[in-house]
Amino acid sequence: MNKAMLKGKMVIGQSGGPTAVINQSLVGAVLAARQQDAITGILGARHGIQGIMDENFIDLTTQSVEQLEQVANTPAAALGSVRLKPGKAECEKVFDVFRKNDVRYFFYIGGNDSAETAHIIAEMAKEANYDFCTIHIPKTIDNDLRVTDHCPGYASAARFVALAFMGDDRDNAALSGIKINVVMGRDAGFLTAAAALARQHEGDGPHLIYLPERTFDVAQFQADVKAMVARHGRCVVAVSEGITNAAGDPVMTTGERDSHGNLQLSGSGALGDFLSAKVKEAYAGESVRVRADTFGYLQRSFPSIVSEVDAREARMVGEFGVNHAVADTVPGSVAIRRLSSAPYASECFITPLSTVAREATEMKDEYINSAGNDVTQAWIDYVAPLVGDLPKMGKL
Amino acid sequence: MNKAMLKGKMVIGQSGGPTAVINQSLVGAVLAARQQDAITGILGARHGIQGIMDENFIDLTTQSVEQLEQVANTPAAALGSVRLKPGKAECEKVFDVFRKNDVRYFFYIGGNDSAETAHIIAEMAKEANYDFCTIHIPKTIDNDLRVTDHCPGYASAARFVALAFMGDDRDNAALSGIKINVVMGRDAGFLTAAAALARQHEGDGPHLIYLPERTFDVAQFQADVKAMVARHGRCVVAVSEGITNAAGDPVMTTGERDSHGNLQLSGSGALGDFLSAKVKEAYAGESVRVRADTFGYLQRSFPSIVSEVDAREARMVGEFGVNHAVADTVPGSVAIRRLSSAPYASECFITPLSTVAREATEMKDEYINSAGNDVTQAWIDYVAPLVGDLPKMGKL
Repeated sequence: MNKAMLKGKMVIGQSGGPTAVINQSLVGAVLAARQQDAITGILGARHGIQGIMDENFIDLTTQSVEQLEQVANTPAAALGSVRLKPGKAECEKVFDVFRKNDVRYFFYIGGNDSAETAHIIAEMAKEANYDFCTIHIPKTIDNDLRVTDHCPGYASAARFVALAFMGDDRDNAALSGIKINVVMGRDAGFLTAAAALARQHEGDGPHLIYLPERTFDVAQFQADVKAMVARHGRCVVAVSEGITNAAGDPVMTTGERDSHGNLQLSGSGALGDFLSAKVKEAYAGESVRVRADTFGYLQRSFPSIVSEVDAREARMVGEFGVNHAVADTVPGSVAIRRLSSAPYASECFITPLSTVAREATEMKDEYINSAGNDVTQAWIDYVAPLVGDLPKMGKL
Repeated sequence: MNKAMLKGKMVIGQSGGPTAVINQSLVGAVLAARQQDAITGILGARHGIQGIMDENFIDLTTQSVEQLEQVANTPAAALGSVRLKPGKAECEKVFDVFRKNDVRYFFYIGGNDSAETAHIIAEMAKEANYDFCTIHIPKTIDNDLRVTDHCPGYASAARFVALAFMGDDRDNAALSGIKINVVMGRDAGFLTAAAALARQHEGDGPHLIYLPERTFDVAQFQADVKAMVARHGRCVVAVSEGITNAAGDPVMTTGERDSHGNLQLSGSGALGDFLSAKVKEAYAGESVRVRADTFGYLQRSFPSIVSEVDAREARMVGEFGVNHAVADTVPGSVAIRRLSSAPYASECFITPLSTVAREATEMKDEYINSAGNDVTQAWIDYVAPLVGDLPKMGKL
């Protein structure tokens, strides 16, 4: 293909659960595209793939840089998001809209499902001999994409979790008891595991960390809590919303299903309340203060506490995706390579869409302790540079 | 009384639910006390009144200013807190410990129950002709103390709530649906009402605000939500954990009771899940995305986002309490008088303990709209200067 020939409009969309920095990727891509002569128009799709099918676009060539920078610093998807795994018919509709509008570039900011959508459309273009480049720009608070060292959006959510546990542990130390905090993450424990960053002094919580990568046993949980209370006089627990029992079923849900047919985990206090009841049961007859909080959507949308590394990298993957597309016209997914942890340094590269699409990843074994109720130092070494410096908690 | 005569040790303690700035008051008082020749020793009581009865003190004369400043910037009660309304016997025990240790000053940082404890002990000292000055230093995220314009601790919690709603509203706009957020506050809606600060543009949420000051009617709530969804295509709801039905009973709890015998409201997702179910019921048969989050203990303990005004005033009430005690030796509660809202300015004054003890206050009628499902501009004018500048949310 003559690279100089790929001239036309671009479409950009956002998909899946919002993050605190997904708009950095959007703005990074848009500002980079404005510098490219090959890109003759910038169309923002409202609510991702749904907006493309409906031809519900917003022209992204006219906003001031000031307005775009304000958007970049705003959590959640400014174009609107969507939870839709399109089938072949929907992808054909999308492809028809692209051809009709002379769209030659498609940038889809999202997780593994969005990479899959980008992959299907890229294959269609190839089959149709339509000169076209589609790029997946990574985003997820779950940190569960393959290939990349980590995902933009994750570190800011992890920072929220770390800060929340720091403050809540001081609260629990002031009014002792057992505190259970339920953290987002259906299949991967990365976000829950970030709670460990809250520990600054001996005895600090969280004292127990339960991840979806390990089977959750209620009796073992009860025994773990009692052991920590015996040692510390209190116990703060981090637990992933996605923990499953030996049969592989969620430990507790409301029974509702989301638009993907998955059992709804977030947006309910059911798991926390269930675990509270189990702790009280373990202390039958004894007076014990047990509370559960479910952090919920605040983890992915709370403004003003984003990780600096995360904001910078989210911008970087957007810019890199556009510049790569114009320079190489080869479809792919943008990934991050860690060059150094101290001082932290990273760079972008492109990986084939097939390596990121569909399947997700989870925490490595070396990040989880043998008892399956805590993380390891290797995990801290991995995550700390992403989250950045945290305030120091003072004690008397 | 010869004012120059009141020389002796001081005891300081913290009580009730922690806040993000209660340690500012502690450190303000301790640093002021170190400057006073009349104060011959500074004893920090571990876990409030309980620590006094147990003579469980920490010497607060030796820590470096650097260490104290780190404590001041740490959420939750560094001395440990307690939930105990002492009876006469317990107050007598406290008074005995004071006499035995030549304690002449007692500073109790807490809410109206702590003011009551301080009041009882002050009366005992008067009866016993024991030269003694007891000062209540105000603290509560609920903002429900009488006399004072507002309470230290409130504005930082209100800032958390405002930020949370700002981000969550953008999240809800990206993936539309009905979102219910349950905010702390048993009898007063001040904290829930702070959610209104999240609104920056026409159509921004929260679209409905329910406070404990008004009777909560489930059918009206269902109708309100449907009306907002019809208008905005989505609906974000702020609801106080303390809402009650026409009979005056909590709308939903787990049935558990706390150490004061009150029905447990915080630390459970029960109310949010109940309201979610009621919304789904109202849309029977229709597909509708409903989620509920309960902000929980994060509201009072989240580090790094404190209100600047709040941190400054929390320090100020601690300093003022000590300096007043030494200069005037008259028992009382420190209160804040607002001198101006724009630019914001305030000063401290002393009010008799009896005016603050026991009874709490709630939101004025002029702060609540006539439908009882939102706040007024008068409320915004009151609360905005306390919470401080908020980040601007960008839109496309």
